[in-house]
Amino acid sequence: MDTKQGLEGVVAATTRLSSVDGEAGVLLIAGFPVEDLAPLATFEETTWLLWNGALPGAADLAAFRSRLAARRALPAATLDLLRAAAQRRVPVMDALRMASGTLSLTDSAGDTGQDAVILVAAFPAIVAAYWRMLEGKEPLAPREDLGHTASFLYLLTGEEPAAERVRGLETYLNTVIDHGFNASTFTARVIISTRSDLVSAVTGAVGALKGPLHGGAPGPALDMVFEIGTADRAEPVLREKLARGERLMGFGHRIYRVRDPRADVLAEAAARFYKNAGDSALYDLARSVEATALRLLREHKPDRPLDTNVEFYTALLLHGLGLPTDLFTPLFAVGRVSGWIAHCLEQLANGRLIRPQSEYVGERDRRWVPVEERR
Amino acid sequence: MDTKQGLEGVVAATTRLSSVDGEAGVLLIAGFPVEDLAPLATFEETTWLLWNGALPGAADLAAFRSRLAARRALPAATLDLLRAAAQRRVPVMDALRMASGTLSLTDSAGDTGQDAVILVAAFPAIVAAYWRMLEGKEPLAPREDLGHTASFLYLLTGEEPAAERVRGLETYLNTVIDHGFNASTFTARVIISTRSDLVSAVTGAVGALKGPLHGGAPGPALDMVFEIGTADRAEPVLREKLARGERLMGFGHRIYRVRDPRADVLAEAAARFYKNAGDSALYDLARSVEATALRLLREHKPDRPLDTNVEFYTALLLHGLGLPTDLFTPLFAVGRVSGWIAHCLEQLANGRLIRPQSEYVGERDRRWVPVEERR
Repeated sequence: MDTKQGLEGVVAATTRLSSVDGEAGVLLIAGFPVEDLAPLATFEETTWLLWNGALPGAADLAAFRSRLAARRALPAATLDLLRAAAQRRVPVMDALRMASGTLSLTDSAGDTGQDAVILVAAFPAIVAAYWRMLEGKEPLAPREDLGHTASFLYLLTGEEPAAERVRGLETYLNTVIDHGFNASTFTARVIISTRSDLVSAVTGAVGALKGPLHGGAPGPALDMVFEIGTADRAEPVLREKLARGERLMGFGHRIYRVRDPRADVLAEAAARFYKNAGDSALYDLARSVEATALRLLREHKPDRPLDTNVEFYTALLLHGLGLPTDLFTPLFAVGRVSGWIAHCLEQLANGRLIRPQSEYVGERDRRWVPVEERR
Repeated sequence: MDTKQGLEGVVAATTRLSSVDGEAGVLLIAGFPVEDLAPLATFEETTWLLWNGALPGAADLAAFRSRLAARRALPAATLDLLRAAAQRRVPVMDALRMASGTLSLTDSAGDTGQDAVILVAAFPAIVAAYWRMLEGKEPLAPREDLGHTASFLYLLTGEEPAAERVRGLETYLNTVIDHGFNASTFTARVIISTRSDLVSAVTGAVGALKGPLHGGAPGPALDMVFEIGTADRAEPVLREKLARGERLMGFGHRIYRVRDPRADVLAEAAARFYKNAGDSALYDLARSVEATALRLLREHKPDRPLDTNVEFYTALLLHGLGLPTDLFTPLFAVGRVSGWIAHCLEQLANGRLIRPQSEYVGERDRRWVPVEERR
């Protein structure tokens, strides 16, 4: 038997959902290059694509939009739990994980097709409701006339969002919708491989996503840009960080040896958004920080491929959309939940129980000693 | 790259917690043969053993008992959620998973040492409170003077349990406390490998445990014994099941090629308990069903090693203790939660991110088509 600590390089299953080519820097979402799909599709379209293997026709798309729109209201017990969490100022990811688990409190619980729609519809509603509670506001009643992404921005702010904000956020959600077997997706597949239910699998995945080693937490990359403040300070600040042995947030990835293709999609979306908003100062600063960081990383660690990852431009884009840093990882979950579910559907259709082995390296030949005789 | 569907035979990590030798039929719990430890230790002792690597001395044991006893009260929001679940008659495992997730609603949330104690203390309290709610009764206030296992039986029934009932249940909880990398334990390790928290990891594990492929659901084995009813019907009923291609519940295991060593521990505990209770009719019937099943399985499937597994005598023992079938899998969780946590502690101390790869077998070279142009 081989021991594969961390299972690095072990292929645990086949998938038709996404292809991550870390050497070439290519990400395919159900056969589409991410840069072709993400800036054009609605989130309902990419979700349908992952779940069904093809882009929906007009009638299917309209029906799917309506099904999702009809499921935005949260169970009363879910809202009560979120209120209790908000009183304790529980972090958003923990609140999302708890609330996700309560989505079994519906009439259709355990029906895979219904659970899938409920989870995707509820995730943005949970995040928006909880954020408002943390701000001391009441959650808003959902509006069925808005698309999935516009609805989230409405539920968060109470305002109908401008088209370019919806497009910016939709591009982000599409970009992170799936990415091979990261730890959260793998968690969902292990859970559902026992023939458990979607709510259990997705709730487990949220728990994995919140860990700091998971990735998908772009806050620190933005903090670094703010800390630098002006383009001329980029080189001294970054040199000092590298000299102290600090990691530069927003650079490097376990899989990509070249530039993360998602960085380009999000950089372009951010550029467009900041230009529309008439204020490209932060965008220009970030570009300058990125260029300096890449130059210094090549100088400092010539042997290690450390390129811009998805977090760097995620932070810039989401900040530009007016979204607070504490919502960055929860928003990653709002996008990734469709991918988690797609992997669960694939695992249910093809997969067998995922159950690796452990190698025992502990004691042997111990014998019971009653407590009064122990030393 | 090798593809290892289901990761069968892949060693994902080393462990000092339990050794499962499926060929020899030997299970070591932190170096102790399960048959040596399970019938003698209290659950507090085996939990401490797994978490600390050695049996506790008298002072440590007393302190640990007190710490656990002090954490039996559930947060108000957890009880509210259980009430909402009981109104909908949500299955016990789903209620346990939801309630487990809410254990982040404590002052010490995120502190690994405190979360560990809270989870182990709360699991039996959740199961007992929820069962009473399903029966239309109020949950009981916890008593700190009782041991962990006695406390569960008290919280369930309102009566202080006789010593032999406590011993029977304690033997069961010890027997299932850990068992290598089953899917739920592996789920917990994957989640915590991102440096997430114990509540997230354990909640994910509960979700994996509830799947019917996981194992640990002994209800059907007991149903089969009841269906047979009398020893003389064992052969015709079992022959008919085998002829129809049905699986005999309680026999066979993915790992054990010989008799599951846990079956013997539980058979002995059951024998002792039924004898004390003065009614060994069901026990004798089960022994007879087992012998007939083993004979017919060897005749019917001579090439496949199908021996008695842990579920068969679990069912008999728990039924003898007066516990309803719907609580069998939740009780497995009440025992296994200590093992899940032990694996998390081990993973936090030594392990790296668990992130296998997937092999892409889907479409390539697709290009975006606007919805109105799709066919």
